[in-house]
Amino acid sequence: MANETAKEENILDELTALAENKEYRALKDRLAELNNADAAEFLESLPAKLLPVVFRTLPKAPAAEIFSYLSQTSQERLINVITAEEASKIIDELNVDDAVDALEELPANVVKKILRHTEADTRRLINQFLNYPDDSAGSIMTAEFVDLRQEMTVSQAFERIRGVGLDSETVYTCYVTDNNRRLEGVITVRRLFLSDLAAPIKDIMDTDIISVQTTVDREDVAKMISKYDFLSLPVVDQEERLVGIITVDDIVDVIREEATEDIEKMAAMLPSQRPYLQTGVLELAKNRIVWLLVLMISAMITGHVLDTFQSSFLVMPLLVTFIPMLMDTGGNAGSQSSTMIIRGMALSEIKLADAGKVLWKEIRVSLLVGFILGLVNFIRLYFTYGYGMVGLVVALSLLVTVVIAKSIGCLMPLLAQLLRFDPAIMAAPLITTMVDAISMILYFNIARVLLGL
Amino acid sequence: MANETAKEENILDELTALAENKEYRALKDRLAELNNADAAEFLESLPAKLLPVVFRTLPKAPAAEIFSYLSQTSQERLINVITAEEASKIIDELNVDDAVDALEELPANVVKKILRHTEADTRRLINQFLNYPDDSAGSIMTAEFVDLRQEMTVSQAFERIRGVGLDSETVYTCYVTDNNRRLEGVITVRRLFLSDLAAPIKDIMDTDIISVQTTVDREDVAKMISKYDFLSLPVVDQEERLVGIITVDDIVDVIREEATEDIEKMAAMLPSQRPYLQTGVLELAKNRIVWLLVLMISAMITGHVLDTFQSSFLVMPLLVTFIPMLMDTGGNAGSQSSTMIIRGMALSEIKLADAGKVLWKEIRVSLLVGFILGLVNFIRLYFTYGYGMVGLVVALSLLVTVVIAKSIGCLMPLLAQLLRFDPAIMAAPLITTMVDAISMILYFNIARVLLGL
Repeated sequence: MANETAKEENILDELTALAENKEYRALKDRLAELNNADAAEFLESLPAKLLPVVFRTLPKAPAAEIFSYLSQTSQERLINVITAEEASKIIDELNVDDAVDALEELPANVVKKILRHTEADTRRLINQFLNYPDDSAGSIMTAEFVDLRQEMTVSQAFERIRGVGLDSETVYTCYVTDNNRRLEGVITVRRLFLSDLAAPIKDIMDTDIISVQTTVDREDVAKMISKYDFLSLPVVDQEERLVGIITVDDIVDVIREEATEDIEKMAAMLPSQRPYLQTGVLELAKNRIVWLLVLMISAMITGHVLDTFQSSFLVMPLLVTFIPMLMDTGGNAGSQSSTMIIRGMALSEIKLADAGKVLWKEIRVSLLVGFILGLVNFIRLYFTYGYGMVGLVVALSLLVTVVIAKSIGCLMPLLAQLLRFDPAIMAAPLITTMVDAISMILYFNIARVLLGL
Repeated sequence: MANETAKEENILDELTALAENKEYRALKDRLAELNNADAAEFLESLPAKLLPVVFRTLPKAPAAEIFSYLSQTSQERLINVITAEEASKIIDELNVDDAVDALEELPANVVKKILRHTEADTRRLINQFLNYPDDSAGSIMTAEFVDLRQEMTVSQAFERIRGVGLDSETVYTCYVTDNNRRLEGVITVRRLFLSDLAAPIKDIMDTDIISVQTTVDREDVAKMISKYDFLSLPVVDQEERLVGIITVDDIVDVIREEATEDIEKMAAMLPSQRPYLQTGVLELAKNRIVWLLVLMISAMITGHVLDTFQSSFLVMPLLVTFIPMLMDTGGNAGSQSSTMIIRGMALSEIKLADAGKVLWKEIRVSLLVGFILGLVNFIRLYFTYGYGMVGLVVALSLLVTVVIAKSIGCLMPLLAQLLRFDPAIMAAPLITTMVDAISMILYFNIARVLLGL
């Protein structure tokens, strides 16, 4: 890959030089040789002011395709500098789902101005799509698919694919509908290839149809496509009429984005809409301050707990020095468990009904892990400093903390699910804060009893 | 989705009842109606002892396909109870990549016994595939694809697809090779559909070939397929000969698994090989104890730091009560930053060269966030307890801690990348431990100066 990257960078440098020297003719020819995804990558790498100039040199058809590969930021930048007519031409060329992606974050008046110039059909479709809830199947589907009729033969089906194939997002799975656009069957091109040319579609189509409604969450769509290894999944409205399809390449992005969202939530942040480098300082700060404040205030509880044990650590200040280790280990042990459960639930590997099994497993793991950690500490304290009783207090506190941390860590995400919250919020930071207070109470009580403070 | 799930559960219950009552005939008929992925899901849900019995009722062709959808645990369970001949028949039916998946975790002698009964071609291929490094393109590719020749016409290509299509993993992208199996071009079935039947492949194939070598990491393969929206990607050996293809449905799983691996590493665990509920207590404990020990021992450093400030907190025990809040907030602030950078690097949105930009952004965010957190604390301490000077100490310590935590949080993953470690290890737990010690040093020094301790 190292060579690949170097080669790619050489091409980028060469193209940028052409753009900066205004050799647009040569640039246009070189861009035509590139894959559209690579051309988009080049446009992204250009200085902001060169982007519209270079984009305008592209011929119409690849221009729309390349546009669909650009980041939201670049798309908006372009739409803001080109005329509404130019923008509407790109929108007309795009598949509906890509057009909606490009438009949905723009101010309503800009969208209105652009749509005024698009074709009536496009406008109607886009308006319909813009109304589907965020992250629903409707919002990520596309309306360009190949539909067939039951009474067609295989060879008529091939003809139809040739006719509408150019404008379809995928031609490889075709959908058989009746006069009311109700979905009756599904057939893959592979199946068509392996069938007799004269065979009627009715006899060879698959009638065990797996479809989703427009309102289904895109995460569930991703799970279905991944479970069945589909290239596309049909989307139907409430009357079971086929309104669109979702293709696997969009799902690849959904899986990435959903994982990123979960990871951000698990690190106590509100999910961001754009890549890090394209997110402003104010927005980053806003996404982070909420949970930092909540957690900071919660951590004050642990402070109060320590306050009540002042007399103990004034008698034996040594006890204070074990606080960081106990708190960190409890936090780490708890977040290991919560992370595994949150991820397992996200992948549908763990369900609410497994709560008992999960807890029993975590208790056994934590006894084992806690014992080893406690033992290491006891040995260190006894043989290095000769602290027999203190060593026992620390070791015992560690063991109990780890068991409680892991129990809380595995149960809280399940509880969140039960209460219909997103389990991802029950991750490391919140678990750590909860475990902190509990571990301090345990620690000082164990110390009081064993050391007679 | 609620209805869907209920419906699915009814079907599962009905099928399980048939299996338990040994009505294998009826069961076989009902299973035949199901999608193979659903049939596999049913087999997974069966009690362990019923699994082989029910599996044996399946006809040969769907049996292999359903087998490929089973979890590794169930696959191994089956292979252990059926004869080597039966197993080899399934292996013969499977695509090479699925066969390799089923075999690679089995003991070598079991694999040998099974392979002895498979066809010579299958055996050779599987042995070759088993030798590719873990997580490489070679280890996830499949050898079943449609290859074409330059001099064929479109209609000859269609004929070839009809001929070999049944055994290919995908027919939708065809690969054009020369006599030495060297890759010369790529053509999609969609393109074939839109071309004249008499056109020679040479004239319409795409010669701007994007391929990977067998040794490339599967994560990079996933990135390429997702970048170019490919349905499949050709894999070549060192002599640029086509040896296999990787299809998008396998990539969907790779993306999921890589995200899970990253999430586990970020929570200080060694990545697990199997789903949580199928992982034993000992293995879970083993995956977790390593980092817990490392982090526990590191946290002792913070303990030593506190030890050196004993005289300060003996004079003013109140200072101890702010330790949890300072440590937790520092940890949370730092892990927010490290999480964003680790994820950004995993998605190739952030590169080493962006280090300066990233640091500058984090410093501004942390000044903003740290100021707010400090202010909230100062107000609370001043107006609730009347602690003016102490409030200032805590607020200032918080501000400095947050700035340092976020700087360390964003730089450590980049440093790990530079030193060719996995950035994911520089996540919350390790960052927290580093920030802990630093924040305590800052806090007590600020206290000493401002409070004159």
